[in-house]
Amino acid sequence: MINKTTIDLEVRYAESDQMGVVHHGVYPQYFEVGRVHWLQQYNLHYHKLEQDGIMLPVYDLQIKYLKSAKFGDVLTVNTYLKELPNVKMQFNYEIFNQDDEKICIGHTTLVFVDEKNRRPMKCPNFILKLIQEKAGD
Amino acid sequence: MINKTTIDLEVRYAESDQMGVVHHGVYPQYFEVGRVHWLQQYNLHYHKLEQDGIMLPVYDLQIKYLKSAKFGDVLTVNTYLKELPNVKMQFNYEIFNQDDEKICIGHTTLVFVDEKNRRPMKCPNFILKLIQEKAGD
Amino acid sequence: MINKTTIDLEVRYAESDQMGVVHHGVYPQYFEVGRVHWLQQYNLHYHKLEQDGIMLPVYDLQIKYLKSAKFGDVLTVNTYLKELPNVKMQFNYEIFNQDDEKICIGHTTLVFVDEKNRRPMKCPNFILKLIQEKAGD
Amino acid sequence: MINKTTIDLEVRYAESDQMGVVHHGVYPQYFEVGRVHWLQQYNLHYHKLEQDGIMLPVYDLQIKYLKSAKFGDVLTVNTYLKELPNVKMQFNYEIFNQDDEKICIGHTTLVFVDEKNRRPMKCPNFILKLIQEKAGD
Repeated sequence: MINKTTIDLEVRYAESDQMGVVHHGVYPQYFEVGRVHWLQQYNLHYHKLEQDGIMLPVYDLQIKYLKSAKFGDVLTVNTYLKELPNVKMQFNYEIFNQDDEKICIGHTTLVFVDEKNRRPMKCPNFILKLIQEKAGD
Repeated sequence: MINKTTIDLEVRYAESDQMGVVHHGVYPQYFEVGRVHWLQQYNLHYHKLEQDGIMLPVYDLQIKYLKSAKFGDVLTVNTYLKELPNVKMQFNYEIFNQDDEKICIGHTTLVFVDEKNRRPMKCPNFILKLIQEKAGD
Repeated sequence: MINKTTIDLEVRYAESDQMGVVHHGVYPQYFEVGRVHWLQQYNLHYHKLEQDGIMLPVYDLQIKYLKSAKFGDVLTVNTYLKELPNVKMQFNYEIFNQDDEKICIGHTTLVFVDEKNRRPMKCPNFILKLIQEKAGD
Repeated sequence: MINKTTIDLEVRYAESDQMGVVHHGVYPQYFEVGRVHWLQQYNLHYHKLEQDGIMLPVYDLQIKYLKSAKFGDVLTVNTYLKELPNVKMQFNYEIFNQDDEKICIGHTTLVFVDEKNRRPMKCPNFILKLIQEKAGD
C-alpha cells in the first residue's frame, strides 16, 4: 500500500437517486477526487501534467458497492497504489462513511500517454522519484 | 419565434433524485441538447465552430419549473430564437412531457467569443445568413 | 441580506468540459451545496424536512456567468436570503474564485410544499422563528 | 449471449471533459440506458419493479475503455446477459461509435432485493419466464 491519502467529501443532494441513495454512477467522481488529492501530495496536478504534455486517461475501472451512501453522509476516500507505476498506474480506493462502515472498494488503471503522438509512454522519471522518495519515508 | 426545432429525449434513471423526480440541475443539459439540435439544422456543430475559432459560452440561464418530470418520461424540447443574434444569441426553450403538459420553460443567452483574443465578437455573417434564409422559408 | 453563509468547494475534473472550463450546467449543484449549508446553520436538513413531510422543490433558477472557473479552482459560495420566506423562499448566491474574482451570481426560488397533498404551504413557523432569531443577532 | 438489445445515444456536450473526450465517469449512465432498454423488451420497467417492491441495486461495475468518445458521436450500446439471473443478474455491455469501432466493454451485476426487508431475494419467477421465453425464440 503505497502512500495512502485520505480526503473527506459530503454527499450532494444532486447525487442521490430515486432509490434515496447515491447513484452508483457517481462513485467514479469520488474516486477521481481521491486520485487528484493523492497526486497533489507530490504537487502533481492534472492540469500541470496536461500542460507538460502528459495525459493520464483512465483505462479501466472497477467498483464493488458494499453499502449504500445517502445525501448528507460524510464519506472518507482512501487512495493508494499497490505497486509503482510503469506504463500503467493503478489506483486503489476504499470509501467509508461517517460510521466507519466500508461502503465501497474499487480501482482505476490509468495509462501515461504522450500528448504529442497520443501513444502510451513510461511513467516519467521525475514522477517515479517523487513516489519512491515518499514511499521510503 | 425563429426556426423552432423539436427533439425528444427519455429521462435517465441517473437524472432522478431522492424526491423521485428529475433533479432541477439536469435541465440545463436538456436545454443544451435542444440547442445543439437547433444549431444542427444549419449544419452548425459546436465542435466545428470551436475548430473555426468561434466559442459560444453561456452568459446567462433562466429556468422556470412548472411540473416535475420522472424517470421514464419522454420529454419534448422545443428550441427557438426570439430575435436574430448579434453579439449575443438568446435561445428559448419549452419542455413538454408525453402527456403534452408543459413542465418547464427557460432561456440561455450565449455570447460569440473569438477564441484568439477571448473577446466578444459579432455573430459571424455566414451564421446570420443561414438563420435568415431559413427564417424566410 | 439575511444570514449569509460561506462554503468552499474544489472544482472536480469531471465538472470541466471540452472548453476547459466548468460546464455551465454544474453551477446549480454548487448553489445547492451553498443552500444545504445555509439550512444547516439552523440545523435544518433536507432529509429531516422531507421526513417531516415538508418538500422544498425548486421553482425557478437564474444564473449569470461572469467569469469561467477551472478544474482545481477553489470556489467560495456565498448564500443568503433577501427577505423572509413566505410560501416561497428565495436564495441568492455569489461565487468567487481563489483570486477573489466574482465568477457567478444567481438565485433559486424554492416553494414549501406539503408532502401529503402536494400543495404549496406557508413556511412553517418553527423555520421562520429560527431565521428571525439568527437575523436579529 | 441472451437477448441482446441495441440502443443508440448521442454524446452530450456536458459529457465531455477538458481532455476533449467523454469523461470516463459518464459510461455507467450509458450502461444504465442500455440496461433500462433491455428490461423494456420484457415490459419490465424500473419504476414498476420498484412499485412491486423489487429493488435492483448495482452490486459491481467494471469498465474497460478502449477508445475515447467525443461530443457529437452517436454511440450504439449493446446489452445482453451471459446467463439466466438467479439472486444476481449480470448485464454485459459493448459500446460502438458511428465508425463501428468498439470503444468500451463492461458489465454490471445487479442484485434482486426485497424492498420490505431489504434482503437479497431470488429473481422473481415471472421475470425468469419472460427472459426464457424470449431466449427460446
